[in-house]
Amino acid sequence: MDRASLIPGLQNIATRLRIDSIRATFEAGSGHPTSCCSAADLVSALFFAEMRFDPKDPKHPLSDRFILSKGHAAPLLYAAWAEAGAFDRSELLTLRQIGSDLEGHPTPRLPFVDVATGSLGQGICAAIGTALNARRIHSDYRTYCLIGDGETAEGSVWEAANSASMAGLDNLCGITDVNALGQSRPTMWQHEMEQFAVRWRAFGWHAIVIDGHDLNAILDAYAEARATRGRPTMILARTIKGKGVSFTEGNEGWHGRPLKKGEELDRALAELQKQFVPAPVSINLPQQITRPPARPEPPPAPEAVAPPSYKTGDQVATREAYGTAIVKLGEVDPIVVALDADVKNSTFSEKFEKAFPDRFYQNFIAEQVMIGAAMGLAARGAIPFASTFACFLTRAADFVRMAAISNVGIKMAGSHAGVSIGEDGPSQMALEDLAMCRAQPNIAVLYPCDAVSTERLVALAAYHPGPVYIRTSRPKTPVIYSVDDVFTIGGLKVLRESPKDVATVVAAGVTVFEALKAYDQLKAAGSAIRVIDLYSVAPVDEQALVAAGKATGGRIITVEDHYAAGGIGDGVAQAVSQTDIQVHRMAVREIPRSGKPEELLDRFGISAKHIVDAVRAVAGRRPVGAH
Amino acid sequence: MDRASLIPGLQNIATRLRIDSIRATFEAGSGHPTSCCSAADLVSALFFAEMRFDPKDPKHPLSDRFILSKGHAAPLLYAAWAEAGAFDRSELLTLRQIGSDLEGHPTPRLPFVDVATGSLGQGICAAIGTALNARRIHSDYRTYCLIGDGETAEGSVWEAANSASMAGLDNLCGITDVNALGQSRPTMWQHEMEQFAVRWRAFGWHAIVIDGHDLNAILDAYAEARATRGRPTMILARTIKGKGVSFTEGNEGWHGRPLKKGEELDRALAELQKQFVPAPVSINLPQQITRPPARPEPPPAPEAVAPPSYKTGDQVATREAYGTAIVKLGEVDPIVVALDADVKNSTFSEKFEKAFPDRFYQNFIAEQVMIGAAMGLAARGAIPFASTFACFLTRAADFVRMAAISNVGIKMAGSHAGVSIGEDGPSQMALEDLAMCRAQPNIAVLYPCDAVSTERLVALAAYHPGPVYIRTSRPKTPVIYSVDDVFTIGGLKVLRESPKDVATVVAAGVTVFEALKAYDQLKAAGSAIRVIDLYSVAPVDEQALVAAGKATGGRIITVEDHYAAGGIGDGVAQAVSQTDIQVHRMAVREIPRSGKPEELLDRFGISAKHIVDAVRAVAGRRPVGAH
Repeated sequence: MDRASLIPGLQNIATRLRIDSIRATFEAGSGHPTSCCSAADLVSALFFAEMRFDPKDPKHPLSDRFILSKGHAAPLLYAAWAEAGAFDRSELLTLRQIGSDLEGHPTPRLPFVDVATGSLGQGICAAIGTALNARRIHSDYRTYCLIGDGETAEGSVWEAANSASMAGLDNLCGITDVNALGQSRPTMWQHEMEQFAVRWRAFGWHAIVIDGHDLNAILDAYAEARATRGRPTMILARTIKGKGVSFTEGNEGWHGRPLKKGEELDRALAELQKQFVPAPVSINLPQQITRPPARPEPPPAPEAVAPPSYKTGDQVATREAYGTAIVKLGEVDPIVVALDADVKNSTFSEKFEKAFPDRFYQNFIAEQVMIGAAMGLAARGAIPFASTFACFLTRAADFVRMAAISNVGIKMAGSHAGVSIGEDGPSQMALEDLAMCRAQPNIAVLYPCDAVSTERLVALAAYHPGPVYIRTSRPKTPVIYSVDDVFTIGGLKVLRESPKDVATVVAAGVTVFEALKAYDQLKAAGSAIRVIDLYSVAPVDEQALVAAGKATGGRIITVEDHYAAGGIGDGVAQAVSQTDIQVHRMAVREIPRSGKPEELLDRFGISAKHIVDAVRAVAGRRPVGAH
Repeated sequence: MDRASLIPGLQNIATRLRIDSIRATFEAGSGHPTSCCSAADLVSALFFAEMRFDPKDPKHPLSDRFILSKGHAAPLLYAAWAEAGAFDRSELLTLRQIGSDLEGHPTPRLPFVDVATGSLGQGICAAIGTALNARRIHSDYRTYCLIGDGETAEGSVWEAANSASMAGLDNLCGITDVNALGQSRPTMWQHEMEQFAVRWRAFGWHAIVIDGHDLNAILDAYAEARATRGRPTMILARTIKGKGVSFTEGNEGWHGRPLKKGEELDRALAELQKQFVPAPVSINLPQQITRPPARPEPPPAPEAVAPPSYKTGDQVATREAYGTAIVKLGEVDPIVVALDADVKNSTFSEKFEKAFPDRFYQNFIAEQVMIGAAMGLAARGAIPFASTFACFLTRAADFVRMAAISNVGIKMAGSHAGVSIGEDGPSQMALEDLAMCRAQPNIAVLYPCDAVSTERLVALAAYHPGPVYIRTSRPKTPVIYSVDDVFTIGGLKVLRESPKDVATVVAAGVTVFEALKAYDQLKAAGSAIRVIDLYSVAPVDEQALVAAGKATGGRIITVEDHYAAGGIGDGVAQAVSQTDIQVHRMAVREIPRSGKPEELLDRFGISAKHIVDAVRAVAGRRPVGAH
């Protein structure tokens, strides 16, 4: 369609999107209409002249992707999809109601939303993932991502910028809605477009500065982005916050403020009504895309993965077994990919890079974009394993939070857990990672103690719906399981038990071996304990924990290479909370320091010696009444 | 001193620093000698020709600051301070031993370390804080910060870059040790110095590219930085990783690898010995600085702060009371400052900006640098209150972790806690923030329910040694406390009690009011509960919780606008774990959604109605044996 025919139609669509945003937020009594108005022309042109997608099949694997990184413009997103025919326009007025999936910020409850946004600087990272995915499946689908100007202050945006240019993602087009006004004050550079351009160009992007309300310029920019090879494009659109309504245009104080009933609303709608123009033809959506053939075979079951090949007693670090495990997965399933943040030699993801270099994505020292990109890859159907030191995963804690909200299938592996890493000291020790991941609904948390269970759990994790966190350790530990042992997410293993156990010790990872040493010491001294490997930290096997506690005098001792709050002790306490079982928590209770691993386990109260002392202390009490 | 006299001495110092780094890491059996060798010339010149400091008084309030953001080069830092006379050189060989404060990565156990580093991209953010502090106290002390090239991939570095240039921090000099080799592979741009320069210049810094082993060039660069007005400087030093030892220079595979006993070590030391040159004079440290007069008055006690002036029943949001509280603090203590990330109108820190614009630091939407800068400010003696939406504090979770390790006195306020924010939906709801802060040792966690307790707790927080987290809510809540009520960190309030209480309900924030409604409903139906406001979530008043539980049939019900793990339920369970008291946890147990606040409290199981049901359910059980 020629521009003369196209533009009036697009202008009218933009006007409708503005009206819809204002109406919906008015009905809801909250929301960000002015943030929607600034981007309406950009979104109109994108949806109705640029992107290839099927509104009846938003998850189409080959359709272009649109990620609204400035998630507070959700009403605009919803209006665009309604305009495209994905659902009835009348639903727009249910915005933010408890019974509506049109929430205040977009979530993947909606089929056209890949990842939840609303925490700024995240959608652009997920866009890296969807763009990488296009390359992975040899598709020419493009990813478009709308970010806010204020959002550009977030460091994660610049992690994404580096990742995209290092990977030469010319299938990625960013658009910055430079409306100059933040939430509480004007943004850093307001309408100094050169400040944006110089930054994006410095980071290797092709930058195009345009008037964000000039539809010709917008269409030219999208075309120029499409024609640009070897680097991503950032369209810097100079816009007016509240565009279309005279008394909101460019005025401070309108962020997150719906229009009020009466004169305010009526006047705004009247002004917008006047902005409709005669349009010679109606706009059809760009060409339909063909559904590819269905995936030929069903995804491999965990059983298809090559089994562990260790011998009992082999000394293998679980972090190394992780590396082996993801390679085995990669061998049976081409949709398994891996991501690193310059620690692949420590996490052993380097094994995957060696085997499948095209499916390995290096982010350099940038954990936020690593997790964000994993979210985008997972949303598009890949199975991404993203790994780093567990303590550095806290750098991406807000992404972990949004991943839980999105319930997207990222598989995170954190190595170098706890004080058992030794001399590097506390900055490299993860002591709060179990708490971080247990806090969120939807995240399965696995903590294997040996190489066999590591391989088995990694395979289970791959096909578990939703996010998974796998915690691995630095030191070598002995293999204690055999190829016949079965593991389940939500399971546990009883390693030692007898009818005379005076307490149950629940451990995981390195503390399993401390517990087994304690078992031996106590046995030599004439008393017995039950020992449980809680390799599934979330969910836990509540029934089995309760049964064990009841069978051992109502006494459970938890011991974890982790701080005291939010981890294994918390999980076990919750599991037995409706019984009389008492839980005694052993954990690291102060900031640790450098030292040898064995010294540190002892100094910080979680070694075998301390377990023995704890058993003696709790067994000395009268048993709680059994039921 | 003229250059001809100075440079040979500095060269010899650099050689000694290399020898010390190699010896110390050899003794320790671990560490990063090659990362130290690349920066030895830069550090030699910095310590012995550029910075003004007193090695016997490293915390001098007016001395220049050096922050080693690439914390793994710790041996180099230690060697420099030993060389300067801060402690005996022989201690260097105790690196990484459990009994030594010379840990694997620097912590403020050492007097010359402001904030713990080792998690990359953080030191540079703290440097923003120490530079802002110089301005705050009208001192011309300079801040120097050494970062790694791989570290530059971290998004937080670019948050700091924007903050520094927006504030025109010409008292800040960064140095990037561009040694081209990361941990697991060469860095993004290796020795393409222009890639670094174009980025720093784009972000508004003065960038100087030099040969990082040319002492003349290094000294010129420090001088040029000092002479540069209105913008910070980044010296981009092209260096060789492992410089000084022929077989490590520029070779991959040497990251984090100490030299081995025997030929490797001996050869390296022999080569370095040969690098000593005749030096005409010995290097004295730059001019001593004068100790300022002692702070004239002792810091104000919390009692000096203007008391709350609300009337019982006033409807005030705790987030707004926070804004009032920090203004009152600012009025009595000039060292109180505030930081924002473009949400000041929501957190009410805007009140502080209005009252004390020179003590208010706007970071725009960049939470990592906000918290990092707060750490730097606190390390230098300010009392920084940094606030944003509580959910966005997870963006800085790794900084919170390092703040705990540093035990530095940052005061974080997170608003918009829980589902009670309503229609904005889960991306804006903090439901894991209590877990995040409780997980760390050293962090006090406060959660006031009304405006009076908010003001009192904020004042206590200011003078509490170490980090504090204050959680505030969006909705207005009624004032229930009077100006005579006393609050303590570690305390709680019993709001309702009688001899017939069938259970204790422990609540905080908005759930206090749900619990009080439940109390009224149960009372009307003829049964009584004890109600506790757990305004101090960490530490908790264990004795009082145990006493209450024992007095109410051994039954405690916790109810929090937070997920189930790691928060109030966890804290109370731990507190009573050595008793027979059973804790029933009420919390949000799934990802929430948009809706009205009251609808959401009810839908997600933490409203008055649910509390009543829970009381009836637990009270129906036979009471656990009282003691």
